[in-house]
Amino acid sequence: MQPERALGAAVARAARRPGAWQRPPLEGLTPLRAWFAREVGLTPAQVLITAGGQAALATALHALTPPGSPVLVESPTYPGALSVARAAGLRPMPVPLDHDGVRLDLLEDAFAATGARVFYCQPLFHNPTGTALAPERRQRLVEIAHAAGAFVIEDDYARRLGHGLPLPPPLVADDPYGTVVHISSLTKPTSPNLRVGALIARGPVFERLRSHQVVDTFFVPRPLQEATLDLVGTPAWHRHLRGLTAALRDRRDAMVSALYSHRLDVRSPAGGYYLWLRLPDGTDESTFVTACLRAGVAVSPGRPYFAAEAAEPHVRLSYADISGPDEITEGIGRLADALGQA
Amino acid sequence: MQPERALGAAVARAARRPGAWQRPPLEGLTPLRAWFAREVGLTPAQVLITAGGQAALATALHALTPPGSPVLVESPTYPGALSVARAAGLRPMPVPLDHDGVRLDLLEDAFAATGARVFYCQPLFHNPTGTALAPERRQRLVEIAHAAGAFVIEDDYARRLGHGLPLPPPLVADDPYGTVVHISSLTKPTSPNLRVGALIARGPVFERLRSHQVVDTFFVPRPLQEATLDLVGTPAWHRHLRGLTAALRDRRDAMVSALYSHRLDVRSPAGGYYLWLRLPDGTDESTFVTACLRAGVAVSPGRPYFAAEAAEPHVRLSYADISGPDEITEGIGRLADALGQA
Repeated sequence: MQPERALGAAVARAARRPGAWQRPPLEGLTPLRAWFAREVGLTPAQVLITAGGQAALATALHALTPPGSPVLVESPTYPGALSVARAAGLRPMPVPLDHDGVRLDLLEDAFAATGARVFYCQPLFHNPTGTALAPERRQRLVEIAHAAGAFVIEDDYARRLGHGLPLPPPLVADDPYGTVVHISSLTKPTSPNLRVGALIARGPVFERLRSHQVVDTFFVPRPLQEATLDLVGTPAWHRHLRGLTAALRDRRDAMVSALYSHRLDVRSPAGGYYLWLRLPDGTDESTFVTACLRAGVAVSPGRPYFAAEAAEPHVRLSYADISGPDEITEGIGRLADALGQA
Repeated sequence: MQPERALGAAVARAARRPGAWQRPPLEGLTPLRAWFAREVGLTPAQVLITAGGQAALATALHALTPPGSPVLVESPTYPGALSVARAAGLRPMPVPLDHDGVRLDLLEDAFAATGARVFYCQPLFHNPTGTALAPERRQRLVEIAHAAGAFVIEDDYARRLGHGLPLPPPLVADDPYGTVVHISSLTKPTSPNLRVGALIARGPVFERLRSHQVVDTFFVPRPLQEATLDLVGTPAWHRHLRGLTAALRDRRDAMVSALYSHRLDVRSPAGGYYLWLRLPDGTDESTFVTACLRAGVAVSPGRPYFAAEAAEPHVRLSYADISGPDEITEGIGRLADALGQA
């Protein structure tokens, strides 16, 4: 599901273009900043080009939090965010989700109890649950963070991984305070090697992000920035995104159906490339994961997605790195067998 | 002095190669690790590919020092190192140099006085002074750090910027303890956009570097790694390095001569792309820098190269980003005029 040919061609063109190896502005090429800005309705001056989403998150955490301080995260959450927070000497504190996203009453309590100045979240197709933040919670979430004197880091990694329904705008689009620091990345819908993303923010926090980005990574190689601009302007890009939408939807449906046929119930998200499967009470996660692996099925244990103790056993089932629906049906069959034996 | 054409061709080939967009190992491609390893006489397993020297330094400081701790630096030193240390919440403490590199008696005192666990240095063509660490200080420096329970971060940025004389091996090559963490980078002799470098270390510290690199930047784009391997295997690369050596030497000689003809005395380093000019006592650095700029000559003020107070006024004069010796002679003439008026 990677546009390898279009990517290769775009990079090959960019690398040979006159001036492609000249030093770019530290903030990124203006047309690329403008492209990211248009997507969220902000201006190019509010966009900082980063070396992908992970580097953007590391920069944001370094810039916004003193070492040793707490940082609020959804529970469960993306393990890569927990790793980067811990490596920065921060203390991740979990705030539970429900089916409409983070629970705002608990978020407000957590700000008050911890004094945290940052909340990291994925409002769109949250990893691993696939949950989208309900429309009626959007504005209130920003208000709560603002009232706490805190920033919201909005990791919008899945905006190009929707399954075809209209998407809500990102939180940063309606942020009246400069409270939201938005992370966008092109890595997921292209290739893990196209490490190009953006940090987007209104107001004075932008300068803090900029100065940390400069010391952490200097700037993103110009040929990769030019190739990205080239790629997203081609008809092949839009074809790729349409194809990706259809492939993700088909695979999701195949996986949900296959699980259902084995009497395994799971919520069907409207975007992303995985399902979050609650295991029966008492199932030992690592025993089950090992049994799946032995049956040739790779699943992710749920434990690393929790900042503190996990309440119930889970696994994350990805449908990205496989050949298609037939392999999904076969894999879920083997998984169900392994579960019967666990 | 950048090999733009060879670089562009290497990247274009790499980007279209089958598999070029597949995820590389987190530590980097093995043949590229082996190439960096051969240069310093270590093994591929002791090499971590990084997104250039600045990212390598940020990762090393994050991995080796808890926030708030002191870090010893040469005085003067590279301002980018001071920035990344301060951004990581560290306290840079200066240790004076003489014409043979860092003063070991003062280094020993500084470890004892501060309890620092890291010393950052540039033993080869130190930035900004161009000093090379004297052979008789090499082993003793590592011994002192080892006795203090500290690491030496050896920033070997200038190894491919020599002016033609034989170069001493890096400190890491003779390190019996696993005390030296070595930074290599291809950025300087190629392009600021080829953000490919390496962290090289013996012993258990490697794993700490690896885990921090993964959370900070994930990995270096595979097409850039493949292009680097391709580039350094071409005859054009060796031609480029020979041409670079000759160009740097000619420019250095032109600048030293031009300064001398205006009765400005300066040490002539055996590598690098700049001179470190002591200004007459009482000269105001920023007034002088502004006067030069008004005369069309860009020079760097000395102040940012000092972790604490600068004792004497200096400027750094670069001969990298100009057309050649004629422009140097003209520029130094204008600089001398500006100095006469300052």
